[in-house]
Amino acid sequence: MKIDGVHRRSIDLADDGPVFEVIDQTRLPHELVIERIETALQAASAITEMRVRGAPLIGATAACGLWLGLCEDPSNEGLSKTAELLLATRPTAVNLRWAVDRVVSAVSMLEPAARAEAARREAELVCEEDVAINRAIGSFGLPLIEDAWERNGKDRPVNVLTHCNAGWLATVDWGTALAPVYMAHDAGIAVHVWVDETRPRLQGALTAWELSSHGVSCTVIADNAGGLLMRRGEVDLCIVGSDRTTARGDVCNKIGTYLKALAARDCAVPFYVALPHPTIDWSILDGQREIPIEDRGSREVTEVRGLTTEGVGSVVRPFPDGTRVANPAFDVTPARLVTALITDRGVCSADSDGLLSLFPEASHPRPPI
Amino acid sequence: MKIDGVHRRSIDLADDGPVFEVIDQTRLPHELVIERIETALQAASAITEMRVRGAPLIGATAACGLWLGLCEDPSNEGLSKTAELLLATRPTAVNLRWAVDRVVSAVSMLEPAARAEAARREAELVCEEDVAINRAIGSFGLPLIEDAWERNGKDRPVNVLTHCNAGWLATVDWGTALAPVYMAHDAGIAVHVWVDETRPRLQGALTAWELSSHGVSCTVIADNAGGLLMRRGEVDLCIVGSDRTTARGDVCNKIGTYLKALAARDCAVPFYVALPHPTIDWSILDGQREIPIEDRGSREVTEVRGLTTEGVGSVVRPFPDGTRVANPAFDVTPARLVTALITDRGVCSADSDGLLSLFPEASHPRPPI
Repeated sequence: MKIDGVHRRSIDLADDGPVFEVIDQTRLPHELVIERIETALQAASAITEMRVRGAPLIGATAACGLWLGLCEDPSNEGLSKTAELLLATRPTAVNLRWAVDRVVSAVSMLEPAARAEAARREAELVCEEDVAINRAIGSFGLPLIEDAWERNGKDRPVNVLTHCNAGWLATVDWGTALAPVYMAHDAGIAVHVWVDETRPRLQGALTAWELSSHGVSCTVIADNAGGLLMRRGEVDLCIVGSDRTTARGDVCNKIGTYLKALAARDCAVPFYVALPHPTIDWSILDGQREIPIEDRGSREVTEVRGLTTEGVGSVVRPFPDGTRVANPAFDVTPARLVTALITDRGVCSADSDGLLSLFPEASHPRPPI
Repeated sequence: MKIDGVHRRSIDLADDGPVFEVIDQTRLPHELVIERIETALQAASAITEMRVRGAPLIGATAACGLWLGLCEDPSNEGLSKTAELLLATRPTAVNLRWAVDRVVSAVSMLEPAARAEAARREAELVCEEDVAINRAIGSFGLPLIEDAWERNGKDRPVNVLTHCNAGWLATVDWGTALAPVYMAHDAGIAVHVWVDETRPRLQGALTAWELSSHGVSCTVIADNAGGLLMRRGEVDLCIVGSDRTTARGDVCNKIGTYLKALAARDCAVPFYVALPHPTIDWSILDGQREIPIEDRGSREVTEVRGLTTEGVGSVVRPFPDGTRVANPAFDVTPARLVTALITDRGVCSADSDGLLSLFPEASHPRPPI
């Protein structure tokens, strides 16, 4: 999408050597810093330290990281070591494994000397497909916003609430939850986004930054505020992303998503989840029991980063040293709270039948409940 | 309650002149700074700027502020001007009006010369009654924690989740939501509190500070995390406070309370509201339609206070200047989501019948729905 009128993607492969570039998302929204990644280890730390984040972008970065690893050591041992390194970075998102497996499959039967080039082609394909997938999600989600715009009589903006960042920064381009929003905006529909700030890491700052940079109207709110806004009728629909979706439609996404889904149901506000098909984990059904939830460090809660009044990047601790903190990074929204899933093949109900109607080829290791 | 073994209250009237002392709660949890208040105007700013906060303590501070105002100008005009000044500080809590009305009633029929002394006595009574009310709330709430302790077989701590700060810092002593927790702890029950950090103002830091200072085990979590913990069975009961409760049991409390009540219902976790009777507004029924919700400034969201790595108090802005922000301070939890109300007269169902069974003397300007 656009930054002040200039198009850009969140990840770019260099043409002239084993290197790719990402935006360091820990420096946003204050600074746009491009990070050059030249080794698989650098790619892994960029994921672990969340300089890149968002399930689809994590997948794309891991695919590119594997390419770099194969440039260093294309042996079987090198391949499996690098794949393990990358798979260990984050436990929850399923795209990570999907992207790494794709590159591994594309190169493992080749001679070592041919692997790096093949990995590069596959990583590029992963990136291009992500853009196509998100464009498709946008086009299938657009009518949901158009319908709300018609229902409002086109006399006030459609109010969309979103949680975390599932925009173009979380993907290669377009975003998942925000793809329909960008398409609606580009189609001339008045749309306004309530942006959950999304503690502890405040990814809402990324969402507000990318929406504003593209020209979409938005307002940041504390995560606590969405329930009140829904009760007041100030939210027309919610759209969030997904880090992993089970075969029956349970949605694992950023911590706090479940609370917004509960409020949406209580207030009869449609609650949509936008997801690229690589985030579907066909091997599991019950998200609550089967998805490992990443526990992250306490400093994400106890330290807040930002600019001082002098405009210098700094950190403050609102909680005293020694405060005990728990910091689970995701929660699971049961399928029953999801109005519909917006996928790259169309919109479906959040259950096994809905998903299978769009993905009939999906193999089921276990029968749907 | 105790700070490192030494008992203290949140507000103290001086014996030797028109002055009272409060703890500057914007300096906590990093520094314990006592603020001397010598004029009604200072009392009003302490409330507006939230150096004192919490519905019961706001009421006590306003009562003391009116006393100081009458020391300056005991005329009818002085009385009504000071009362107006104090009533205008915060719109949502009903204790504020209750406390100011009490002092006004106690002095308005007296000669101006007698008013200051009478106001001091009434303000002291407001404070003493608050302590007695909260002690009663604690004793009525204690069995709910004892029951959970019995159900757990006494082999793991009772996990209580609370939102915002409804502890002794929010009252004169004991607290409302935390009074049963302190009593349980003092009675030797193992209790552990999940403390919502409570954005935007992070009153969870106050809650964690006062619990830890008294010796109660607690863990701070982002507001987003409570739903996951409840789904995992890691919360035995929720207890929150109330800024205003309607005659049919709708509860207006810190923004985000409603989301936790929804999660509690979805996960079959009991959700209790602890409230002193002065927070009941018998004149209204429908909290959503009838309670004004205070909108506070955007800087509460865009600026975060804390200590730097060098231990110096500082502010950082995680959101760029110009970010549009909405900051409603309270929401309304409908009575249907509340398991029971813990009042200073006992525990009752959250409806008109329940409240009237404990407060039969309450006059009803409108019949209960």
